[in-house]
This record gives sequence, C-alpha cells and structure tokens, in this order.
Amino acid sequence: MHLTRFTDYSLRVLIYLAVKGEQRSTITEIAERFEISRNHLMKVVQDLNHRGYITAIRGKNGGLLLKRAPETIRLGELVRDTERDMNLVECFGDANECVITPACRLKPILAEALNAFLAVLDHYTLADLMGPQRPKLIGLLQLDDVPPAS
Amino acid sequence: MHLTRFTDYSLRVLIYLAVKGEQRSTITEIAERFEISRNHLMKVVQDLNHRGYITAIRGKNGGLLLKRAPETIRLGELVRDTERDMNLVECFGDANECVITPACRLKPILAEALNAFLAVLDHYTLADLMGPQRPKLIGLLQLDDVPPAS
Repeated sequence: MHLTRFTDYSLRVLIYLAVKGEQRSTITEIAERFEISRNHLMKVVQDLNHRGYITAIRGKNGGLLLKRAPETIRLGELVRDTERDMNLVECFGDANECVITPACRLKPILAEALNAFLAVLDHYTLADLMGPQRPKLIGLLQLDDVPPAS
Repeated sequence: MHLTRFTDYSLRVLIYLAVKGEQRSTITEIAERFEISRNHLMKVVQDLNHRGYITAIRGKNGGLLLKRAPETIRLGELVRDTERDMNLVECFGDANECVITPACRLKPILAEALNAFLAVLDHYTLADLMGPQRPKLIGLLQLDDVPPAS
C-alpha cells in the first residue's frame, strides 16, 4: 500500500510554495531542489493549478504561487484529489468480478479503514507539514534569499 | 492507493477456507470458483502456509484447511503480513532522497493515518468478513455439499 508519486510530488510542490511564501517559484527550480523529474512536475503543477491550489502566472516575471493559505489546505482533501484510484481491492471498482461480493463484508470494512485514514489527514493542513520548522526547511532547500519569518 | 493483489487473493483464500470449515480445499478449486490465476494463488497459499494461517496437507486426500479459528485472524495482522510495501511515500523507505525530510512532518502524519487504517482492521477478524452470511457465501461459491450450519 502506498500513495502515488503524483500525490508525493503534489505535496512537495505545495510545501515548497508554502516555504517560499510571497516569492514566486518555477517548475525548473522545484525539480532541481528536489532532484526529481521536471516532466512529472509539469503534470502535477497543471493539476494543482486546475484544482485551485496554486496560481501559475505567465510571462517574464511569472511563476507559481500558492492560491490558498497553507492553513486552509487539508491533507485529506488534497490526497482525495491527487489519488485517482482509491479502489483498495477489486470489489471497490466497476470491473469487479469477485463472485462473493453480494455476501462479503470486506468492502465496507476496508471502506471504514480508508475513512479512518483520511479522517486523520483531514485533521492536518499544509501548514502543519511545516510546523515551526520553516527556517530549517528554507535551509534544506537552499532558499537563502527567502526571509525566515513569514 | 490500493492493496496488492497478493493481499486481495490472500483474503479470498482465507474466506473460502473459512466458508468450507472442516472440508479440505484445493488451489485449483479456489482458482476456478473465483476465476483467478492458479499461479498467483500458489504463491499466496505458500505464503499463508508459511505464516501459519493455513495447513497444506499433502497426498491423495490432502488439501488446504484453516490452521487458526476465523475469530482469531485479525484483518490488520493479515494486511501487515501480506502487504510487503507499506512505504506510503518515498520518505518511508531506505532509498529516500527527499532533501526536506529532516524538517518535514509528512512522514509522522502519514504514519498516524496508516496506524488509524490498520487499527480499524484490527477490530475485525476473518469471521467478521462472513458475519451471518455463511449460507449465502456457500451458495455464491456453489459449494452445495458444504453443510450450511458450521
């Protein structure tokens, strides 16, 4: 069981933009700092922009900014948005062919477990991922020109 | 996010053996009833046998039986055993290269969510997957020679 790379990278983009605050960022810059694929990031950024998490400003002085305050972005909401396939096992999906489905309680029990998973994530926001560690994150990301106090 | 096919099939084998009760089963029979790959099932059965969930009796009158009572097999325990990779995102694994890990709170928050997921599954056992539906499961699996009352 794991989250997709798409969700992982979505979280990294949002953390990066949250750390930068008012300063604009580029996809190239984020890809370099995390040493991850620029191509993957492009799709992630397009999706986050489409869903209203971030703003992509075009032009010479353009760049990426968070569109919502970090305190308002619940992690459960984000994971529901970025994980396209939450079908834990075959009987969750439309193509289910398991013969015992009408009498088996696996699906409702797993659904209860999934809800518990997401309920924990709904308790936390993007701001909680940083906590009081923003200055340390600035250092780790080598963002020397970003002021430590937001 | 989804569980592996290995976990899905492990659950199906255990449910099947629980429904059959004292009657022995074969891999071929389980593969046919669920219309799933016999090759995949062989690995699943080998693993369940190795872990002490089932007994594989060799010989002419051999077959598979549950080794433990369905009420004692907790679903959380089973999923922990069958899901080899519970590394939700990169920073859970040994090959983690995410630069912000030392200051990022994603890992402990996701670990808390994963624990909540497994805690729900620990509330349920293999017996709960059947509940009072054993007679209906016998019908769906076309096990006409299995007595409805266990």
